[in-house]
Amino acid sequence: MIRILGIDPGLRVTGWGVVEAEGNRLRHVADGIVMTDGDASVPSRLRALHEALTALIAAYGPQEAAVEETYVNANATATLKLGYARGVALLAPALAGLSVAEYGAKTVKLSVVGTGGADKVQVGLMVRRLLPGATLKRADAADALAVAICHAHHRTTRVSWGRAAVAGNGR
Amino acid sequence: MIRILGIDPGLRVTGWGVVEAEGNRLRHVADGIVMTDGDASVPSRLRALHEALTALIAAYGPQEAAVEETYVNANATATLKLGYARGVALLAPALAGLSVAEYGAKTVKLSVVGTGGADKVQVGLMVRRLLPGATLKRADAADALAVAICHAHHRTTRVSWGRAAVAGNGR
Repeated sequence: MIRILGIDPGLRVTGWGVVEAEGNRLRHVADGIVMTDGDASVPSRLRALHEALTALIAAYGPQEAAVEETYVNANATATLKLGYARGVALLAPALAGLSVAEYGAKTVKLSVVGTGGADKVQVGLMVRRLLPGATLKRADAADALAVAICHAHHRTTRVSWGRAAVAGNGR
Repeated sequence: MIRILGIDPGLRVTGWGVVEAEGNRLRHVADGIVMTDGDASVPSRLRALHEALTALIAAYGPQEAAVEETYVNANATATLKLGYARGVALLAPALAGLSVAEYGAKTVKLSVVGTGGADKVQVGLMVRRLLPGATLKRADAADALAVAICHAHHRTTRVSWGRAAVAGNGR
């Protein structure tokens, strides 16, 4: 049995979700979002995000983390801000000694819904079906649970292939 | 008298420099670079960068930090990676309770050389002139000292204007 923390990072809203996986069986543990104060400075927003993720890791004790790789095509500034948040989302579990895997949005959708072109609604419906008990008040939390589910699937495949533990790959 | 940590962040190479400022007088304290292992996973590289910056802050005890805002126009992936490193560079001093200011590359050049269009060589020469004793084995360390010098200048102006302490602005 393994506990996985899924993270869908953003400077404004970061979704998170914790699942337990045992072979092919999945169980919902918790999910939610971390919001940072848009009026605060970027360094203090990153600090708030770091402290929230560190507290979640301490509270739920996951052994592995999975972070969604979303790309923003808007502009360099938006991409950079997403980078800040994702950097902090990759750092917090690494500092806590967890292995950290990254999965692209298409890989997550393919793993959870069965098609890489699934929309947010389809992802949310499948997360609800796979994880009875998930509240999913926000789409960001559903995306975080989806990346945790994706990691659970890939992890099992990796173990059955006899491959070593991963850290920072999975695309 | 105030100690300022300047940081020029990058996932591969992060320049850093510590200066002491007293009114308009500047003194070089230390400078160098932090390199991360390109063969390691991104989370472990971010962890290495975070731990190095945290150790530098503990060793030199700066009260304020200044981080250079460089933009990469290459592509979204490069911008995102720079964002990871800058997110970590903004986080480490914020976690240590330092105020953190950000300055765009043009602001730094204008402050140090007197023209926003100065090249790396001119910046290096002016940093050497302003800070006798700086070793500047790498251009990245010179850029980090330059952003620290820029912060020292802006800081003095701010204080003389009677403005409050800054955190995360300065563009």
